[in-house]
Amino acid sequence: RTLNKVLFFPSKVACVEHLLSQNSACSCFCPLPHGVETSFSCLLRHILSASSSLDLCVFSFSNMDLSRAVLLLHSKGVTVRVLSDKHYSAITGSQIGALRKAGVCVRCDAGSVHMHHKFAVVDGRQLITGSLNWTLTAVQSNMENIIITEEAELVQPFIKEFNQIWALNDPA
Amino acid sequence: RTLNKVLFFPSKVACVEHLLSQNSACSCFCPLPHGVETSFSCLLRHILSASSSLDLCVFSFSNMDLSRAVLLLHSKGVTVRVLSDKHYSAITGSQIGALRKAGVCVRCDAGSVHMHHKFAVVDGRQLITGSLNWTLTAVQSNMENIIITEEAELVQPFIKEFNQIWALNDPA
Ligand SMILES: [Zn+2]
Ligand SMILES: [Zn+2]
Repeated sequence: RTLNKVLFFPSKVACVEHLLSQNSACSCFCPLPHGVETSFSCLLRHILSASSSLDLCVFSFSNMDLSRAVLLLHSKGVTVRVLSDKHYSAITGSQIGALRKAGVCVRCDAGSVHMHHKFAVVDGRQLITGSLNWTLTAVQSNMENIIITEEAELVQPFIKEFNQIWALNDPA
Repeated sequence: RTLNKVLFFPSKVACVEHLLSQNSACSCFCPLPHGVETSFSCLLRHILSASSSLDLCVFSFSNMDLSRAVLLLHSKGVTVRVLSDKHYSAITGSQIGALRKAGVCVRCDAGSVHMHHKFAVVDGRQLITGSLNWTLTAVQSNMENIIITEEAELVQPFIKEFNQIWALNDPA
């Protein structure tokens, strides 16, 4: 059966340290609820499931947990490519600079056109897309939706779109 | 086979008068290209295919052609329900007032939370969702995506979400 899943936000707030920490032997003592599955923890799990590649195309990227997830994948040797909006990436709180500093391949769309996409492709097979920007407000405050699908008819066009925008913004 | 389609924006600009005009005998003499299929004309066709109901949940709605499409469906007896963001609907150019005046059922989310969805359900069967707001900028200028699907696993959660937000914002 083909994976098809919908997540709605705002997500309940719960600790996701167990997903992001590389030392899973330690228990977390933060004040957030633990052991609770939320829309956000489900989203994180899908992103962290990447074993070979993660292609990410997001207008805004300021969410620290999502940034940690991307850095974790990068440190594990997963090929991460990030496309973001040039104007937004300069804004306070943007994680784009931190990703770049850590060696993640980042390209910013500098066109006059707003890059308003918010999608990710995991291992060239799983599409994560919706209204959700990768910000804390979007995750915790806004009413938002995310579709996670492995339907090839939906995934393939997004892969093509990603590769086109990626090539268009080659800094070389 | 289940319908699964992806549209990317910005759309080429072309005349959509033939889709929106009730008098299809007249030809249009506007300066835009005619007889050209675009992402936007495809989106319009899917919306206009509604024969019994259209449930629309959009953060911002200022696009005149989309407004005409909704009014056309309403005049044909299709049950149209529109959910929009209270703050945005007061902005200049918003079509929400015009829809309400024409007798379309409109409810505005007045919560402190931003209603950031942009989806439509046609005839309780076809889901149209993505990053695209129903504005002219989104259609003609931004890089955006829309998924059109009849995959029940994707459509049903959105129907449930719509009905929940609709009930929550009952003005009665
Ligand atoms: Zn904790
Ligand atoms: Zn014309």
